[in-house]
Amino acid sequence: MNGTRIADLGDHVGDEVTILGWLYNRRSKGKLHFLILRDGSGLCQAVAFKGKVDDDLFESLGRLSQESSVIVRGTVKRDDRAPGGFEIGVIDATVVHEAEEYPIAKQAHGTDFLLTNRHLWLRSRRPYATLRVRHTVIRAIRDFFDDRGFTLVDAPVFTPSACEGTTTLFEVDYFDDEKAYLTQSGQLYMEAAAMAFGKAYCFGPTFRAEKSKTRRHLTEFWMVEPEIAYADLDDVIALGEEMLCEIVARVLDKNAEELEILERDTAPLEAIRAPFPRVHYDDAVRALNDGGIEFEWGGDFGAPDEDFLSRQSDRPTIVHRFPAAIKAFYMKRDPEDERLSMSVDFLAPEGYGEIIGGGQRAEDLGYLQEQIVKHGLPEEAFKWYFDLRRYGSVPHGGFGLGVERTVAWICGTEHVRECIPFPRMLYRIYP
Amino acid sequence: MNGTRIADLGDHVGDEVTILGWLYNRRSKGKLHFLILRDGSGLCQAVAFKGKVDDDLFESLGRLSQESSVIVRGTVKRDDRAPGGFEIGVIDATVVHEAEEYPIAKQAHGTDFLLTNRHLWLRSRRPYATLRVRHTVIRAIRDFFDDRGFTLVDAPVFTPSACEGTTTLFEVDYFDDEKAYLTQSGQLYMEAAAMAFGKAYCFGPTFRAEKSKTRRHLTEFWMVEPEIAYADLDDVIALGEEMLCEIVARVLDKNAEELEILERDTAPLEAIRAPFPRVHYDDAVRALNDGGIEFEWGGDFGAPDEDFLSRQSDRPTIVHRFPAAIKAFYMKRDPEDERLSMSVDFLAPEGYGEIIGGGQRAEDLGYLQEQIVKHGLPEEAFKWYFDLRRYGSVPHGGFGLGVERTVAWICGTEHVRECIPFPRMLYRIYP
Repeated sequence: MNGTRIADLGDHVGDEVTILGWLYNRRSKGKLHFLILRDGSGLCQAVAFKGKVDDDLFESLGRLSQESSVIVRGTVKRDDRAPGGFEIGVIDATVVHEAEEYPIAKQAHGTDFLLTNRHLWLRSRRPYATLRVRHTVIRAIRDFFDDRGFTLVDAPVFTPSACEGTTTLFEVDYFDDEKAYLTQSGQLYMEAAAMAFGKAYCFGPTFRAEKSKTRRHLTEFWMVEPEIAYADLDDVIALGEEMLCEIVARVLDKNAEELEILERDTAPLEAIRAPFPRVHYDDAVRALNDGGIEFEWGGDFGAPDEDFLSRQSDRPTIVHRFPAAIKAFYMKRDPEDERLSMSVDFLAPEGYGEIIGGGQRAEDLGYLQEQIVKHGLPEEAFKWYFDLRRYGSVPHGGFGLGVERTVAWICGTEHVRECIPFPRMLYRIYP
Repeated sequence: MNGTRIADLGDHVGDEVTILGWLYNRRSKGKLHFLILRDGSGLCQAVAFKGKVDDDLFESLGRLSQESSVIVRGTVKRDDRAPGGFEIGVIDATVVHEAEEYPIAKQAHGTDFLLTNRHLWLRSRRPYATLRVRHTVIRAIRDFFDDRGFTLVDAPVFTPSACEGTTTLFEVDYFDDEKAYLTQSGQLYMEAAAMAFGKAYCFGPTFRAEKSKTRRHLTEFWMVEPEIAYADLDDVIALGEEMLCEIVARVLDKNAEELEILERDTAPLEAIRAPFPRVHYDDAVRALNDGGIEFEWGGDFGAPDEDFLSRQSDRPTIVHRFPAAIKAFYMKRDPEDERLSMSVDFLAPEGYGEIIGGGQRAEDLGYLQEQIVKHGLPEEAFKWYFDLRRYGSVPHGGFGLGVERTVAWICGTEHVRECIPFPRMLYRIYP
């Protein structure tokens, strides 16, 4: 079935085209019907004149319900006042399906109602624009790594054990009473991949069974995790910085229209350039206390702390060398201060919180074996992981970037649940 | 940490470079050590002359164990006899880590042993080449859809119910005694997405709890599922055909070296051009019986039937219009024969079996409600899906392509388990 996409109307001024779409909105004025059509690539206005189209058709267009599917044939002309910049003079139209009364009207709805109707809400302008940005972000990330010689090595979803402890794991009944757990991070697998491919990344859904209802949590979210052999903490930081710059630049380039729909001020996005400020954990603690926020050395940052720290700059803030005690077992110790780890978090500006967590990994087998015991993790499950330190261990590191948090920041969206097509949360797995 | 990638040596002939890698193999001959190095981007030969490097170093290189990590500095020269076409004259070297005796030796190992050591086996040539091809296949698929105006709309992994029945579902303990199921297909969600974005696709891991041990089954595999609004069966077939041509052409272009490592005859791949033969189910049944294979009209094809059918052509075989009774509830009926459905399978050539399944979906609400009851599916779970037929239903369709089966075909690999980095099967979720 061939039609012209609304996004391509600019190439067809003066031509007769066929639009395959849905009625997004309608306004009638005497002998005129103004139909706003959507087809998934954009919006355009089609105008039907009484007398120029069949009388029965004119009448039926006048009572066509919102979200009815309709095929419109007409001539394209430029019209700066029309949404999208073009107008179609209707010659003929076919109503494919008359919609029942559409539940999402123009008035405001509660978020719960909208999430329950997520399958329809996707057709509205804000979700549409947000997910178009998400598409760009994901493509930018993949291109970034592919163009730099990284190999995509997808980590498994089913894992025999937890990477960073077992408290937030989803358990699955595998076969014959065996249990499997849904991945929380592909990192350990990426360490194996980095030793084989030099530079590798995985990019897939990740799961956290956190009983958390904050605006930053989903039980299912997408994460990209690059890992590089022969890399130190500085390399990891430089990679994350370069990647974020490229993601933001790509969205500014490709999604001007979507950012406008979202009423996103683009000035803060245009300010995202390297270098980002790099703050040692010790200095971050000092800055918090100097700023009147009570914070004890050794703790992890909460949302208010991150918020304060991220607002010291108009660029993402890089906090490095967190205390080893609050980080995962595989983090390398800081050779300059044994209490610290070679870890790093990137905090998005404007208070959008942590979007990247990563660091340099410990290379030494003995140290890791000790840590597994200290962290109370099952040694048996990490046997294969230890092999990476038995056969050609090298300095290496990487990070994880949460896609939905990144999209929330770029779109200026308060809650991550709007940044994934079908959000899964504590009390929501429908639709 | 900066070095030159082996893949880039061609740009550095005559230069002094530093390779950050691992010892893949070694041969010593009097005053010479030939070191085969790998760094994840390729292999190269480094030659150390006694007298030209420090004596202690020369000696230690002579007993360096396989898979030890080593940094080698030296001068690049062209040498057609060397693997990769270049040779490095060693000036200096640093052993980063001396490997214990490497478990994967040059002699043959059983597949079970290799799968248990998958984290190390990735470093070997065949797995490396196969996963490089997988990388290309996935990138080609994403580019294909992105470049044609499709929007990536990731389907959820956690679903409240089964798309095509409940017998092969993995069950997860969600919160507060709620159950969730791991997705078997994102299709129903993509139908919602197609109504919002016109053209949409999802691309993620998919799960089947089949107690199957064939060479074509994984419990976790990657699938891309495009869906188009205002599309009929012919559009779906044309899309699949074009996509497969592009995937194969991309691999031939990017992975000549990998296909050589895999000893893949590329002639059958070079033959993959549109149009592919299109065979009506009725004709397929006839062809089977004419070919001496007993097959009763109404049944689904087994592996031997697919094998026979796919070998009638050197291109993928498109079988369309299967009996409705053996296809999912959402398939549109063939208006020319009510017993048939507007469904399609693509069979890879050379006996690699089904790689695409898809079709045109039923648009009519009443028909779908009836089918849900007939198939014994829980109506409540499909309430949201029915909405897609209440509000602007349109002809639409799409398909699912299994990534690992496609990679198996292109690489000429017998078993799909080698076509995913960390395969999950009936009795395997480790490492």
